[in-house]
Amino acid sequence: MLENKSNQHTSLSELGEFGLIAHLTEHFKIHHSTTLKAVGDDAAVIDQGTKQTLITTDLLVEGVHFDLSYMPLKHLGYKAVMVNLSDVYAMNGTAEQITVSIAVSNRFSLEALEELYAGIQLACNTYKVDLIGGDTTSSTKGMLLSITAIGAANKEDIVYRNGAKETDLLVVSGDLGAAYLGLQVLEREKQVFQVDPKNQPDLDNYTYLIERQLKPEARKDIPEMLKELNVKPTSMIDISDGLSSEIMHICSQSKVGCKVYEDKLPLDPQVISTCEEFELDSTMIALSGGEDYELLFTVPIADFDKIKGNPNFSIIGHITEESQGLNLVTRANQEIELKAQGWNAMKDS
Amino acid sequence: MLENKSNQHTSLSELGEFGLIAHLTEHFKIHHSTTLKAVGDDAAVIDQGTKQTLITTDLLVEGVHFDLSYMPLKHLGYKAVMVNLSDVYAMNGTAEQITVSIAVSNRFSLEALEELYAGIQLACNTYKVDLIGGDTTSSTKGMLLSITAIGAANKEDIVYRNGAKETDLLVVSGDLGAAYLGLQVLEREKQVFQVDPKNQPDLDNYTYLIERQLKPEARKDIPEMLKELNVKPTSMIDISDGLSSEIMHICSQSKVGCKVYEDKLPLDPQVISTCEEFELDSTMIALSGGEDYELLFTVPIADFDKIKGNPNFSIIGHITEESQGLNLVTRANQEIELKAQGWNAMKDS
Repeated sequence: MLENKSNQHTSLSELGEFGLIAHLTEHFKIHHSTTLKAVGDDAAVIDQGTKQTLITTDLLVEGVHFDLSYMPLKHLGYKAVMVNLSDVYAMNGTAEQITVSIAVSNRFSLEALEELYAGIQLACNTYKVDLIGGDTTSSTKGMLLSITAIGAANKEDIVYRNGAKETDLLVVSGDLGAAYLGLQVLEREKQVFQVDPKNQPDLDNYTYLIERQLKPEARKDIPEMLKELNVKPTSMIDISDGLSSEIMHICSQSKVGCKVYEDKLPLDPQVISTCEEFELDSTMIALSGGEDYELLFTVPIADFDKIKGNPNFSIIGHITEESQGLNLVTRANQEIELKAQGWNAMKDS
Repeated sequence: MLENKSNQHTSLSELGEFGLIAHLTEHFKIHHSTTLKAVGDDAAVIDQGTKQTLITTDLLVEGVHFDLSYMPLKHLGYKAVMVNLSDVYAMNGTAEQITVSIAVSNRFSLEALEELYAGIQLACNTYKVDLIGGDTTSSTKGMLLSITAIGAANKEDIVYRNGAKETDLLVVSGDLGAAYLGLQVLEREKQVFQVDPKNQPDLDNYTYLIERQLKPEARKDIPEMLKELNVKPTSMIDISDGLSSEIMHICSQSKVGCKVYEDKLPLDPQVISTCEEFELDSTMIALSGGEDYELLFTVPIADFDKIKGNPNFSIIGHITEESQGLNLVTRANQEIELKAQGWNAMKDS
């Protein structure tokens, strides 16, 4: 157990979250043949014979991932579960169990934790998952939640990030950018409140945005719907860091390129009106907003008829050869390179 | 999602960690028949047909569970894995995978995290477990580690906390109290260093204690050894919070009492000499020290011949009827009530 005495000091923000995980875990060996997929997808996959077990985990830190000045604890509990279940659904699996660990400072009372657990319980009942364990401890500052979700899937049903093929359609569920704008609205109201605590905010124009930020729903229904439609995606990922960042994960792991059409990006009317109000580019918000917890997936072009016209799905582009790169076709029919400006939890460190 | 407006404010330390978990999770329903054991044992158990999956998770917070002024990061990584594997072995299972999530402030460099992961990797290679996932994020203060271990066991091999029967022998592996004393020695050296940074500590008399604190080993060998001896414990738990606290878990879940004999408690010579030096009662340290990561288990009295004389095991007492309570038989042959004064991470909050 010798120490590294080289005294180098590389700041973590230089690598970013994905680079950091890849760097730290690159020399780890796999000892068990049952470990089918380790680091690098929405969830890890463990072989159990005919069934596979999916494991995924997320850490939420007060002051980094959530702000309790506008995030009620019950919503936080609910959302923390959603973030994890979403990763299981992104593997085309069924979420069945969670563990919840929390670290809290002495600022929090028992009643505060009851609120948090009421949200966790609501999520468990709504999504039919069992709380099976966890750890509860004190922290020196603030609140931290660590949740692990355990899912199940038949071997042949699991969808990884690396199966996208040239000519596949690129499909997204729901709409994009609302959760990010909800956060902007809440941040603005927080600042107004700090200046004038008597001010009563009028949030009627932002109800959908705020709900998407404070009480997102994981898309449990999408894998079920795809099964009914007899469609098995060739690749899938959930949209936590922003659409363009997730597209890049699929394309790099599948060794393909893509074309995304700006005019196909699904936007809620509140997203459009609020982007105008905030003088933000709605395409930029849809591509980079993050926290949508929608599913992004690719399907063979032969499945076009099964997907088109379904209000749950938007076909936003298609997969191309790797050498063509990742491109956005603008409304003016210009091709520009797609860039990931997704939210990165390490950048703020 | 209504808020609880009752404005009650109950401090968390009033409940303690176990009371808190029990309170917060008491109304959670189980939705899946595959969830065999949820909260309340060393690990949760999920039914996978002939094999069962074991899941356990622990949260380690800087300033609460570890002090980086004397805990090298490589040791911390190693120990954090041990803490979790120990829970899997306490179910009589085999640990196969872990997830590791970390939150770190900008005080930590890439090289610091490389040290941490070098310790995690050493643990993975030594104990043959696969790192399959995790999350890496920034924190507003200090370092926090959340590890989940996944294990496997045949259904008939799993040992819970609730199977101890009257007349069963109470057995502990290894020896007790050394890790706690190691912490006391390190704390003392830290204070000496703060007064006189040039002072070179002489730790030769405490090497075993310090190793037990900084680089504990989980007892992977014990379930293997018991299998070879053809002994299946009736109950088992790992000693993380202190022997008496763990005995109380087994007795309350098994609805039994016990007698523990003071003169049977296994103590390393360094524990005895250091207790004298620190003017501490070695029995008290053995009962309440914590962080030993040994296994405590009960076996039918018929297995006495298989256990006695084995240097890995100490028979420290036996199980009695519940009404007789939990008792310590002192060297002077007096019976006194056994009390749990185990370390409680919530008390300091």
